[in-house]
Amino acid sequence: MKHMARKPLPPGPRDERGVLQAQILQQARQQFAANGWAGTTIRAIARAADVDPALVYHYFGSKDALLDAATNPPQRWLDSVVAAWATPRAELGEHLVRNVLAAWTDDEIGPVLRATLLTAAHDERVREKVRLVVERSLIGESTLGTDEADRLRRSGLIASQLIGFAMLRYVWRIEPVASMTEDEAVAAIGPTIQRYIDADLATAAHSGIG
Amino acid sequence: MKHMARKPLPPGPRDERGVLQAQILQQARQQFAANGWAGTTIRAIARAADVDPALVYHYFGSKDALLDAATNPPQRWLDSVVAAWATPRAELGEHLVRNVLAAWTDDEIGPVLRATLLTAAHDERVREKVRLVVERSLIGESTLGTDEADRLRRSGLIASQLIGFAMLRYVWRIEPVASMTEDEAVAAIGPTIQRYIDADLATAAHSGIG
Repeated sequence: MKHMARKPLPPGPRDERGVLQAQILQQARQQFAANGWAGTTIRAIARAADVDPALVYHYFGSKDALLDAATNPPQRWLDSVVAAWATPRAELGEHLVRNVLAAWTDDEIGPVLRATLLTAAHDERVREKVRLVVERSLIGESTLGTDEADRLRRSGLIASQLIGFAMLRYVWRIEPVASMTEDEAVAAIGPTIQRYIDADLATAAHSGIG
Repeated sequence: MKHMARKPLPPGPRDERGVLQAQILQQARQQFAANGWAGTTIRAIARAADVDPALVYHYFGSKDALLDAATNPPQRWLDSVVAAWATPRAELGEHLVRNVLAAWTDDEIGPVLRATLLTAAHDERVREKVRLVVERSLIGESTLGTDEADRLRRSGLIASQLIGFAMLRYVWRIEPVASMTEDEAVAAIGPTIQRYIDADLATAAHSGIG
């Protein structure tokens, strides 16, 4: 958490170029998330970042490349997912839910996730990132399931619940999901995630129900 | 199911006005879903529907009003949700999953759901429709939970799983979720929905896990 951004700019830039790039990326994420791929222009991003459009082209080359850079998962987030997967198997459901809640409310990670989900439908390369997040990052270093097909199925199901919950809670802000406490969220969807981790999904259609 | 659309145009129009309106709405859903709210123009919709832009304004008044009309949940879908909720409580999870799969693959209903989800982040009124779908339509005539707060919490959780699954499967087409059979989907997420219907969610964080 030492890199948590508290100021308008993401952390880490060592010189003006870094500062300006970070500033442009931050505004790009907001614009892509708010207006979608087709509704966003380099000009509008430059204006919001208070730089010349030529500088945006100079740093990123094209709108495509800028979206690509704006939706790159922060390494700090990928590391946190790997760390979450290192917890004991029986607590994984809870830890993955807590990890998602922390990521979405993080000043640096949240805007990347939002921009990624809100542009994924319109851009094949962003969709590919969602796929990679689902297939690889979300699973971290852990092994899951009995074989590769089972692992992908389980990670897809985990992603479907975590992403759907995040959409309602953070993007659409639909109550009461939006204002559940973290513990309420864990109690509600933690067992769902845990079941996707270790239950027999093929034959569980009518089992485990009270 | 008697109103299932098999031709390019939705069913029901009795005259040219109805045909043209349906044609415009169909193209509007595609454009809003593909390009988002900000990236869509009346002009582009008119071109795709092969009509004059003035006719679009004449029928719908504004881009706002057109989006509103394009994302109105079809009555046939609302009816099918109510019907699904009329099934025995113990089979509700399975029936709600089957209802969602049928809706997304329906020629008339699927495009409305897609346009709604993909524009909800950008337009407060569409978000309000998602909220209504979650709070009201999804629950149909059924009673759920112990009181109004509990009912809304359960319907929000049900929606979070069904919407997240539909995003991966139909919007982002992420494998293997995208090509699961209907029975596999029911076996995988049916028990999740069933748990949100009838389990004790506040204290279930570490129970019911194999």
